[in-house]
Amino acid sequence: MVKKITFEDVLIPMETPESMHDEYVQNYLKLTRNTGNLMLFAGDQKIEHLNNDFYGENISKDDADPEHLFKIAKNSKIGGFAVQFGLLSRYGQNYKDINYIVKLNSKTNLVDVDQKDPLSRALLDINDILEFKKNSGVNIVGVGYTIYLGSEYESEMLSEASKIIYEAHKGGLVVILWIYPRGKAVQNEKDPKLIAGATGVASCLGADFVKVNYPKSENPAESFKEAVMAAGRTKVVCAGGSSTDIESFLKQLYEQIHISGASGNATGRNIHQKSLSDAVAMCNAIYAVTIDGKTVSEALNIYSERKS
Amino acid sequence: MVKKITFEDVLIPMETPESMHDEYVQNYLKLTRNTGNLMLFAGDQKIEHLNNDFYGENISKDDADPEHLFKIAKNSKIGGFAVQFGLLSRYGQNYKDINYIVKLNSKTNLVDVDQKDPLSRALLDINDILEFKKNSGVNIVGVGYTIYLGSEYESEMLSEASKIIYEAHKGGLVVILWIYPRGKAVQNEKDPKLIAGATGVASCLGADFVKVNYPKSENPAESFKEAVMAAGRTKVVCAGGSSTDIESFLKQLYEQIHISGASGNATGRNIHQKSLSDAVAMCNAIYAVTIDGKTVSEALNIYSERKS
Amino acid sequence: MVKKITFEDVLIPMETPESMHDEYVQNYLKLTRNTGNLMLFAGDQKIEHLNNDFYGENISKDDADPEHLFKIAKNSKIGGFAVQFGLLSRYGQNYKDINYIVKLNSKTNLVDVDQKDPLSRALLDINDILEFKKNSGVNIVGVGYTIYLGSEYESEMLSEASKIIYEAHKGGLVVILWIYPRGKAVQNEKDPKLIAGATGVASCLGADFVKVNYPKSENPAESFKEAVMAAGRTKVVCAGGSSTDIESFLKQLYEQIHISGASGNATGRNIHQKSLSDAVAMCNAIYAVTIDGKTVSEALNIYSERKS
Amino acid sequence: MVKKITFEDVLIPMETPESMHDEYVQNYLKLTRNTGNLMLFAGDQKIEHLNNDFYGENISKDDADPEHLFKIAKNSKIGGFAVQFGLLSRYGQNYKDINYIVKLNSKTNLVDVDQKDPLSRALLDINDILEFKKNSGVNIVGVGYTIYLGSEYESEMLSEASKIIYEAHKGGLVVILWIYPRGKAVQNEKDPKLIAGATGVASCLGADFVKVNYPKSENPAESFKEAVMAAGRTKVVCAGGSSTDIESFLKQLYEQIHISGASGNATGRNIHQKSLSDAVAMCNAIYAVTIDGKTVSEALNIYSERKS
Amino acid sequence: MVKKITFEDVLIPMETPESMHDEYVQNYLKLTRNTGNLMLFAGDQKIEHLNNDFYGENISKDDADPEHLFKIAKNSKIGGFAVQFGLLSRYGQNYKDINYIVKLNSKTNLVDVDQKDPLSRALLDINDILEFKKNSGVNIVGVGYTIYLGSEYESEMLSEASKIIYEAHKGGLVVILWIYPRGKAVQNEKDPKLIAGATGVASCLGADFVKVNYPKSENPAESFKEAVMAAGRTKVVCAGGSSTDIESFLKQLYEQIHISGASGNATGRNIHQKSLSDAVAMCNAIYAVTIDGKTVSEALNIYSERKS
Repeated sequence: MVKKITFEDVLIPMETPESMHDEYVQNYLKLTRNTGNLMLFAGDQKIEHLNNDFYGENISKDDADPEHLFKIAKNSKIGGFAVQFGLLSRYGQNYKDINYIVKLNSKTNLVDVDQKDPLSRALLDINDILEFKKNSGVNIVGVGYTIYLGSEYESEMLSEASKIIYEAHKGGLVVILWIYPRGKAVQNEKDPKLIAGATGVASCLGADFVKVNYPKSENPAESFKEAVMAAGRTKVVCAGGSSTDIESFLKQLYEQIHISGASGNATGRNIHQKSLSDAVAMCNAIYAVTIDGKTVSEALNIYSERKS
Repeated sequence: MVKKITFEDVLIPMETPESMHDEYVQNYLKLTRNTGNLMLFAGDQKIEHLNNDFYGENISKDDADPEHLFKIAKNSKIGGFAVQFGLLSRYGQNYKDINYIVKLNSKTNLVDVDQKDPLSRALLDINDILEFKKNSGVNIVGVGYTIYLGSEYESEMLSEASKIIYEAHKGGLVVILWIYPRGKAVQNEKDPKLIAGATGVASCLGADFVKVNYPKSENPAESFKEAVMAAGRTKVVCAGGSSTDIESFLKQLYEQIHISGASGNATGRNIHQKSLSDAVAMCNAIYAVTIDGKTVSEALNIYSERKS
Repeated sequence: MVKKITFEDVLIPMETPESMHDEYVQNYLKLTRNTGNLMLFAGDQKIEHLNNDFYGENISKDDADPEHLFKIAKNSKIGGFAVQFGLLSRYGQNYKDINYIVKLNSKTNLVDVDQKDPLSRALLDINDILEFKKNSGVNIVGVGYTIYLGSEYESEMLSEASKIIYEAHKGGLVVILWIYPRGKAVQNEKDPKLIAGATGVASCLGADFVKVNYPKSENPAESFKEAVMAAGRTKVVCAGGSSTDIESFLKQLYEQIHISGASGNATGRNIHQKSLSDAVAMCNAIYAVTIDGKTVSEALNIYSERKS
Repeated sequence: MVKKITFEDVLIPMETPESMHDEYVQNYLKLTRNTGNLMLFAGDQKIEHLNNDFYGENISKDDADPEHLFKIAKNSKIGGFAVQFGLLSRYGQNYKDINYIVKLNSKTNLVDVDQKDPLSRALLDINDILEFKKNSGVNIVGVGYTIYLGSEYESEMLSEASKIIYEAHKGGLVVILWIYPRGKAVQNEKDPKLIAGATGVASCLGADFVKVNYPKSENPAESFKEAVMAAGRTKVVCAGGSSTDIESFLKQLYEQIHISGASGNATGRNIHQKSLSDAVAMCNAIYAVTIDGKTVSEALNIYSERKS
Repeated sequence: MVKKITFEDVLIPMETPESMHDEYVQNYLKLTRNTGNLMLFAGDQKIEHLNNDFYGENISKDDADPEHLFKIAKNSKIGGFAVQFGLLSRYGQNYKDINYIVKLNSKTNLVDVDQKDPLSRALLDINDILEFKKNSGVNIVGVGYTIYLGSEYESEMLSEASKIIYEAHKGGLVVILWIYPRGKAVQNEKDPKLIAGATGVASCLGADFVKVNYPKSENPAESFKEAVMAAGRTKVVCAGGSSTDIESFLKQLYEQIHISGASGNATGRNIHQKSLSDAVAMCNAIYAVTIDGKTVSEALNIYSERKS
């Protein structure tokens, strides 16, 4: 069982003014379900990977419709649901209670690194999000932003991320950075040292959470410890990646948390490419490990008992 | 017969404040003629294609004068007329009742993709349009913007489009995105998968409508379904393209709507390259299929009965 | 004799607020000498061509001094005098009654197209010009801006021009665009089709006048008609170019107006490279054709009777 | 013993308004411990060098956790601690009394000069820092910024630095520039002449302190004098670099101060790669030379007497 | 003897509002010592040429310290002293009576033209300078800015210069442009025609003075007349360049003024590379020719009678 945390346990960024402390803490506790751990359902791939992740062989027909993402987020146990603002704007009225993370920047995968180093700019100003939250009453608990470290345009994204974090924290929102080393200068994106570099950068920018890829090495759970340490008071969550065998997925997640010291996960395709009932069960199984402190076999049982 | 919709049927973007709900719904119902379907007369090619579309062999002499576009829009059945602000500024006083879509960005076709990837920037700020509408009382119901997905400058256009959508919706305007995959990285612009990627991006940006090219495949009507699904609550309309045989044009439109699930069309050259009376008849025929739910032969009759 | 126009004949751009209608019409009537036609003395070459146009063989010594331009503008019949702000700022106090067109952007001819496509940015904000006019009381009737269509930087100039037009019209100023197809992508800058493309772009941007080069073709006066038609309610004037035989110059001008339907001309070198008295006579001859509707031989007489 | 300075000895930048004179002088005296000399603990490498400086062979395990930096800064004698805002935002609440220098820009070392010349942009606006200081009460005494002289992007950094200095001084903060000649145009980054160029640039920008690399030459202490002279009223401090033999480190520091005329040092790796107790002792030894005017052997004694 | 001018003789830029006429004229008269001629001591080379101009063979040791520049400016007869803001900020308190020209932009000479065309951006906003002058009471009489004509970045500098001139004149400051043709497109930077192009550009931008290089030709004094004429009401001063023989320097200066019609000079290295007493004498000799209308031999006597 993961220990429950309360107001006093939450680290409030120093730029959050006192008048917004309650707002920040409330968002943080909602997003982490009072544990400090994060089970993030990442639903931003319709720009990042276009429709390749949503339609085709081995993908449930349910996934063809963007609403599938919202149905999963509503019906399963998750900490937060990361999605671009546009989708939120068109589905949010029917899905008010989800904890939303507005994913602020996105790019497609059409131009590859050999042609041009990656650059992803914010689609909206962070102050638009704060205004929108206030006006609409939608349950936005935080924002997300991707940085491609080692890109020739790294400087532009570092600056934009930094300013977003500062303003988001002032407005009481939690910030999750996605950081991927990528560009012509990057030989091995999953080098454990480089992943630790990425989480260190997140801590220097003041992110609350940083999502990184799980390193590739002989003993990834062990080598990933360096990244968790480098992040300091910024918490580390792992990208779910593309693997699909549920048991290995959960086992890896368990090790990330219990061996490496990660604080959770951010999973997309492994969830939404399934039918609604399977996807919900998958969320619940991940949640069991991440938030309820269950074992792999307990979580597998949750998945197996799904209605299908 | 296409079902009539009312206020309650219209999906209002969440960023539209309550005080602008009436304005937005009114614009939406006007533009879709109370059906939710869109018959858009696209008149932005004088920048995009320079004068090549307006003067030459097989083009009516009527088309040499920009006013031809306004005459068609005034005298025929259409949902909306997309045009750059400058033309509107000089002809609008004589054509007040048209439903205008201000096409915000445009580029010429002089520099081709081999030389430099496409980039098209907004010609005016969206707030200029809102100010202008308020001051002039011109019947602007929405705005349009083109994104070249897969261009090396994609990021700039994604950001600009996203901010325009947010502000336009706040001001009660409907937004139509034109999305074309284009650039050195794009091998096949009409790949069904890529078209579905484009409509998915439109939904993530929160567009009301997205105009895309009709895919090329063995069974385009079937393969286009993926794009309609990917768009979710964003409606999909097809570019009319360059074909000129009226019966096949209408047949393709009928299939786009009745097989693929598209919500209409956006047609330019197939309309304005005709003489005024033919162009009006062509609009009315397209309108019959798109808005009145007529069959291809019923629509063909409308075209045939024109005065010429 | 060219027909005189009055307030009611002037097309007021729709973005000009009612409170500025009088101002706009007054500027328009001044600039066109109550005819709708434009005789523009173009004096912006000291940046565009550096000193090459002003000093050397076959150039009057008078032209070495920038004040020569102002003396011509003051002493001859012209509609307007286009000049950069800096010269206006230093000579305007002695030449208050000239109708000024502030040429907002300029570049030198040092970097040629093979090295880098042309880009010319505004030297001042249009709001600076409006402020200056108000504070100084100088007789500024409009502004000018050059766009290089087909340049890789076309998008930047299209945007800047569009915003200038919008703000200038709001402030009651007339706008003249210079549009030249130029860049590595442009094979033949004087292709009649391309020139018609340029005037069409001007109409889509809402310019009052567009200055283009006269096409090169077997029958330029005939082929130029396409450009005049494409411009619609935007009026077309021809660049004077570099020819110096006065009779052919006036003959060509006469044909541009009476065959092609152009509304005037914009002439620089053919005027200012002459001595003051010759330049004044040249202006008056051009004015006779453009504004007074005289024949070529009547205009030639005006030139011949000059004091020299 | 280094002479103590008082209010009257402090050179107040002329752009600091009188109302902020006390604030500026107080910050300056705090940072220099009332001596005018600077012992700066540089803790900005988690972005600059990623995790390579913090984890691995010959690096104390203590250094894996970012909090190590704060523990050192709190428990040792230093003048100031340079760190990115994000780390300050997450640790500052527990380390309120440190003299903070917010390092405003940072880049990673992934893209090397052969691929693209270095560019590092500010992560936050200087006004954010002034606002934050006021709201949070954190003890920020100054800001830092890195310029890569000779980079193709030099102009962007010179401008940004200059504006930061102006605003920081207006707000009473001290400014330290890091200036490194770097880029394809730079053959020898440690050329004494070039280092003197760098300090001269700092003086032209109005920096209070400039941190440069120690030149490489036959007699660096002698050749470094040129840089100290070129800086004029801007004070020069040397980067600690990567050497690790403590005696040579202190000896070099002593010569920089007593032969070359430098005003102190900025040291990072030579401090934080040690265990906490060793790092604290190292700081104290450096402080002894820089601030207390001790000899190398006195300072070495301080280091040797550490608890370990 | 150069004729004294008074308030009425000064050409006030038209953008200078009436409330600032006194301020502008006062600055102009101070800077030109009531003659309209300019003796400018140019002290901006510590960025432009790094430390190469200040330390080394044939350079007085006095020049190693930036304060040398201020000592010269204070103790000699000059019209104005051009220097970057940062130096002014740190030395101005001790040198209040100097007529300062704040040099707004500067770049180093590390990246040469073969690698990348020159670009130099303003280090501060012109409004910062106006604010600073008002708050500090420092005797700033004008600003300076360098344009590299023919650079691929020419457009950026032309725009920035133009806006600075407009705002500076509004605030009552005199503006001096440095214009150098430079870039891959420029074959011969000292071509008399090109120099005349540069002064013509200055006049189109509305500069009060333009500093250019003296042309290279068989008879430079004669060929330089073209540049003086092209500048019109903008006055031309010559860069002192690198020559060091005092008699030829003064002779050339005399010819520039008395044959070519130049209004003075801007000299840096030929002054500050000398010892303080020699530098002061050199200034006084230059001043004698430029402001007092002395002959070369009279000026040489002034130099010879210096205390050394």
